[in-house]
Amino acid sequence: MKAKQNFSGVIAPAVTPFGEDGAPDPERFVEHAEWLLENGCTGLAPFGTTSEANSLGLDERMELLEELVDAGIDPAKLMPGTGSCSVADASILTQHAVDLGCGGVLMLPPFYYKSPSEEGLFHFFADVIDDVGDDRMKIYLYHIPPVAQVGFSLPLIGRLKTEFPETILGLKDSSGDWANTKSILEAYPDLEIFPGSELFLLDGLRNGSSGVISATANVGARAMRQLFDNWRGPEADKMQADISALRKTIQGFPVVPTLKALIAHYREDPGWAEVRPPFLPLGKAEADRAVKTLADQHGFRLEFAEAA
Amino acid sequence: MKAKQNFSGVIAPAVTPFGEDGAPDPERFVEHAEWLLENGCTGLAPFGTTSEANSLGLDERMELLEELVDAGIDPAKLMPGTGSCSVADASILTQHAVDLGCGGVLMLPPFYYKSPSEEGLFHFFADVIDDVGDDRMKIYLYHIPPVAQVGFSLPLIGRLKTEFPETILGLKDSSGDWANTKSILEAYPDLEIFPGSELFLLDGLRNGSSGVISATANVGARAMRQLFDNWRGPEADKMQADISALRKTIQGFPVVPTLKALIAHYREDPGWAEVRPPFLPLGKAEADRAVKTLADQHGFRLEFAEAA
Repeated sequence: MKAKQNFSGVIAPAVTPFGEDGAPDPERFVEHAEWLLENGCTGLAPFGTTSEANSLGLDERMELLEELVDAGIDPAKLMPGTGSCSVADASILTQHAVDLGCGGVLMLPPFYYKSPSEEGLFHFFADVIDDVGDDRMKIYLYHIPPVAQVGFSLPLIGRLKTEFPETILGLKDSSGDWANTKSILEAYPDLEIFPGSELFLLDGLRNGSSGVISATANVGARAMRQLFDNWRGPEADKMQADISALRKTIQGFPVVPTLKALIAHYREDPGWAEVRPPFLPLGKAEADRAVKTLADQHGFRLEFAEAA
Repeated sequence: MKAKQNFSGVIAPAVTPFGEDGAPDPERFVEHAEWLLENGCTGLAPFGTTSEANSLGLDERMELLEELVDAGIDPAKLMPGTGSCSVADASILTQHAVDLGCGGVLMLPPFYYKSPSEEGLFHFFADVIDDVGDDRMKIYLYHIPPVAQVGFSLPLIGRLKTEFPETILGLKDSSGDWANTKSILEAYPDLEIFPGSELFLLDGLRNGSSGVISATANVGARAMRQLFDNWRGPEADKMQADISALRKTIQGFPVVPTLKALIAHYREDPGWAEVRPPFLPLGKAEADRAVKTLADQHGFRLEFAEAA
């Protein structure tokens, strides 16, 4: 199996808060990141799909990442998204993350042109690795075909890890398809594989995965962490059932605006609910319904030390 | 109909050449742009899908646009692509183009998240228009659902033009679906509508379109221009048939690498054939086959004054 884990556990693709002026809000962002690491998360994957990364400008992404590191968060726990449709911008973002000491980067394939050849995708990553040219760079492939449309086949994953064994360390599988995750785990047991949903947390761990990177870890990391720490124990299946039930309820709402609405509600900070287009914030009634549904059905609530 | 045409005729989404170092090559780029304007094009839409715009970095796009204007090309003839998944970067690119005096910009919708709400797409454009906040800004909507997946419905087009009548001037329809183009022409006769393929050049003009913005105008603008200038004449249908036949043959090859291979061949400049991942250049045999097929079936060749 894996000689040494670089990342493992429960990793949140931290949501990105915006200020009154519409710009990303570094204060709320750092506060949320610290809270996540104190409440179950072993690491953070800022600038993922849940983070509205592609709704941020290139400069905004880099500035926010610097804010996390400047605030004292251990960069080894950070796996920022640095994908782009262009080698040029993916290289800029990746070099920046490496220079900040980030433990890894989570990289989308170029997602503008559809049905690219595997050879073309291979060259994209080879070019970024060559451009950055830094031994400290650790790449996690970001497979999310429902959104990006472009993804990683088993042969492509194999070719990349064979060609760049010190750089390509793992993959996040947000296909939502357990059969796909399982086939990757079986084919490449030496990669760090993270399902993109906690629905597959226990099945993943039983098949050699390294944990989970999930949108809902923004509000539910504690239970996931408890399962991660005790997955060989007698309560594991029960814990998974509770985790899955909560996830399914959240999935019944528009996920990103709902996560932000929940944080806004329990922090008593309405500004937290803002999203960027093409997303829309939940309306008041829908936000109230999300809070109530989750509380009634799952006893869900968020606790913040400051509010205690 | 339209009180005054801002853009009309044959517009090429100029392909982007790369140098030995892989960086965009401004010298070849300017040379190609000038050649296009001398050989049938009434305008240029650099940084379109054919231009590999999304395979370029933000800075690369802005620097290349400056090169065109610095070289003396009339910015009123330029409609650069300035779309991005983020309002932030779309605003930076658009402001830059406006400041250079460009006659318009061609703007993709945000294309990362799939199935966005129409309300969310409306807000995206409203935010860019508000951010740039410049009366000189003229936006052409870029509808290309086969690639971007996200597109513009008739109601969304209508809402945008009603809300921003001085800014939203037209649309490029690269749906490849004549019925869609026709429905937009019928619904909004005051917009400047450009089919994204010369297959619909004559039908478009007969139904009030403003011309065409087509990938293949990079190598075949002269014939399109001749038809544009004489579409009411007796030869129009015959001219359209020849134009369509050439287009269909080119479509049998991977379009962008083939356009570049043709330019490389006739300029006797092999470096012209380079593309960026995820595209791959044509192999030698395939490039030769493209040249020969087009020459044999259509008498196709490119002529450059320098080579004469």
